[in-house]
Parts: sequence; C-alpha cells; structure tokens
Amino acid sequence: MTLRIAEIFGPTIQGEGALIGEPTVFIRAGGCDYRCVWCDSMHAVDSANRHDWHVMEPVEVWKEVAQLSGGRPLTVSISGGNPAIQDFGPVIALGKADGYKFACETQGSIAKPWFGDLDTLVLSPKPPSSEETVDWAAFDKCLSAAEGGPEIVMKIVIFDDEDYAWAKAASEKYPYLPLYLQPGNSEVDPNEPVDLTATIDRLHWLIEKVTADRWFTPRVLPQLHVLVWGNKRGV
Amino acid sequence: MTLRIAEIFGPTIQGEGALIGEPTVFIRAGGCDYRCVWCDSMHAVDSANRHDWHVMEPVEVWKEVAQLSGGRPLTVSISGGNPAIQDFGPVIALGKADGYKFACETQGSIAKPWFGDLDTLVLSPKPPSSEETVDWAAFDKCLSAAEGGPEIVMKIVIFDDEDYAWAKAASEKYPYLPLYLQPGNSEVDPNEPVDLTATIDRLHWLIEKVTADRWFTPRVLPQLHVLVWGNKRGV
Repeated sequence: MTLRIAEIFGPTIQGEGALIGEPTVFIRAGGCDYRCVWCDSMHAVDSANRHDWHVMEPVEVWKEVAQLSGGRPLTVSISGGNPAIQDFGPVIALGKADGYKFACETQGSIAKPWFGDLDTLVLSPKPPSSEETVDWAAFDKCLSAAEGGPEIVMKIVIFDDEDYAWAKAASEKYPYLPLYLQPGNSEVDPNEPVDLTATIDRLHWLIEKVTADRWFTPRVLPQLHVLVWGNKRGV
Repeated sequence: MTLRIAEIFGPTIQGEGALIGEPTVFIRAGGCDYRCVWCDSMHAVDSANRHDWHVMEPVEVWKEVAQLSGGRPLTVSISGGNPAIQDFGPVIALGKADGYKFACETQGSIAKPWFGDLDTLVLSPKPPSSEETVDWAAFDKCLSAAEGGPEIVMKIVIFDDEDYAWAKAASEKYPYLPLYLQPGNSEVDPNEPVDLTATIDRLHWLIEKVTADRWFTPRVLPQLHVLVWGNKRGV
C-alpha cells in the first residue's frame, strides 16, 4: 500500500490551533474531497497537482520524518488535503514504536479507524464561506472512530459574521469539544508577500467579536506560520 | 485585608503561554520583589507608581471582574508585578463560588498556600538577561505549594543565546513541567508603536534556534497582545 504525499517538511512549529507553538514535522497528504473557495493548500488538494506529489510506502514516509527530526521524538502533524482519504495507520504504528506522537487535522468528512491511534485529532468543519457543506453524520462518525483515543478538538476558520454565527451553533452542538477559532486568511498566493498589518487586523477583529459577545468558550489564535513565513511552502 | 491592584481589565485574550488565545479578565497586582531590566510592566512593579494603584477589598476586586465579564464564567488571569506578594485566596474563593477559573503568573520567588486553589500556575523564572538571580529553593517551594492543585507550567522569556542555554538547563532541572518559550520584547514604552516586523523576526529567530537544535521540548510562542495592541495598557 502506498500513500500520496504532497510534502514532508520540518522541524518547524505548529502554527495554529491546540498545539500552537509545538515543534513538529508535517506530513501533508495529497488529495481532498473538499474544494473550499479560500483553500490555502491547493497544491495538496487539486489532483491537477498530483504530478508534484510523491507516491511513497509508509516506511519511506517514516524514514523521512525520522531523518528530518534527527531521530528525536516529537509530535508529527498529519495534514493535507484531507489525510482521512488514505490509510495513515502504518505510518503512525512505525512512529509510535519510535516514541513519536501524532496529531492529525481533517475536516471531519471521512472517518478512519486509525483516528483512535492519534494523540490529537483536530476536526475542522468548514463554515459557510468555504462554500462546502458539512455532513454532520460523517462528522459524528469521526468522533466515534476516535473515541477513547486522542484528545479531540474542533477548529473553525472565521471569515465573516455568518461564519461566526455558524461556529457558535457548532460549539453548542459539541459543547464538550475544546474550540479554537482563527481568522480566515484570504491572501493565499505563495508568491505574494503577506500583509502583516491586515493579518493582525483580522485577528483583532475576531478577538473583539468574541470578547464583545462575552463568548468565552473558544480560544482565538492566529496562524503563526503566516506571520513568520507568509504563505511560503515547506515551513 | 486589602489588595494593591495596578489594574483590572478585560475581557480580552491571554496573549502568551499555556493559555494563549483564551478569553480572560486580568487582575494585575501592584508590587514586585524583582526589578528585571527589561520589565514590560513597570507601572505595576515600581512602588513609585503606587499612587496609580487601587487599594481594594477582595469583594471589590471580584465585583469588578464579574462586571467586566458580564457574570459569565471565564478564566481570570492574576498577574503583576508579582501577585505572590499578596493574598489572592479570598478573590479566588469568591470567583470559584461563581464558577470561574483562575490562572496566575509569578516568577516563583514567593510561595503562597492559595497556589493550590488555582487551575493554572505559570512559573516564569527570569533568565540572566533580566539581571535578576533565581532562588531555586524558593521556586521549589512554589511547586510544593501548588502540588495536587493546578496544572503547573514553566514559561521563560529569551532575549539572547545565554538565556536560551539557561532555559535548556532549567528544562533539564524540571523535565516534568511543560515549557513555553517566548522571545523577549525590548520595546516596552507604552507610548511608542511596536515594530511588528522586528517582533516577528524575534519569534522567527527563536523558532529557528529550537528547531535547528532539534530541541522539541518547549512550545515557542509570541506575545499576541503585543502584535495586536503594541504595548498599550489595559488590553
């Protein structure tokens, strides 16, 4: 069995969500069942880019992660695309045998048995601005697949007031899931510099919304990697 | 019994460390046993500023926090100055009765019984660039005072290579304490704008150091409030 891998890179830090600031190596899976209009990782989503993806055996994937991390255990972040299209069980088994931990981020549209082997599962259902529609029954299957295993958290990207209201409803539906909000990033061209002030302004806007509402459930966080590296890939 | 309070403000988000992004109301205590050369809160440290501090009963402090938060429970952050100079036990008791949580940040130079009543205790021993000297016996007393109570984490500010080496040694001394590193902020004048690019560059520098070293223990985080509000007070 082989895996389609868009890129493996690091060590760097996790730029967002529950593990923000944590040193990590990323495994970015190629392929996605969604086409969010504001996707910041189209190179790992659109199969038109599949000639840039690598077809790798799990042991090859693991060899590269181990080499990048100098054999020192850390948390490996499996992202995408939607990594839940593929079977990352064998990679996780190899890594755990070496003392590594695993986090995975997925929109929650496809459940996989290997979710139960993770340390952290980040479910990031996509709000209305994505122009995708969440299948909550599929989302619930992801929760069931992970039950008794990883810490499960929810992360929602907020572009506008409609997304914000939607996130509140999602939070009410899953009050037991720790919630992380991050402002949407509409500057996704890797060849264009990011407007730092505009990026900070969007964070400011979201903080103001949450605190003005006295909605104290979510943590509000930026994308640190965008602040540090813009939209450059492989960092 | 009264408390010397430099300021109470919020709701805003916690800008740094373990609770980064978490909505919070700050209680900033007046007075400190340290004089770190790069202190960013001298208005709450130097007793020359004590005419700006408020002398308040615990019930008055609590009334203000409850009013700011609209009576909706959240995590209250007790900072300073060094809040461990004073007795925050009564404030914590009032807040817990209303369902609030409490985090406290202190350098770890003075232990207090009320540490055990907290939800999160952030111990931030000061590195050599502060020109203060850590009393590790006192630090250990803080750990003992908190034992069985809050989650205890360590946060260290890094200005230079010497601080970095010192943080590594501190981490080896307390391997069981989750560690958060943040780059030092040398721009502390509340009347001057912060250089966003320079602030991000310092974060970049620290991420590069940690990842180049394959030192995967600490999380590396910026001060979000500095990115969003500069050194403005009361946010």
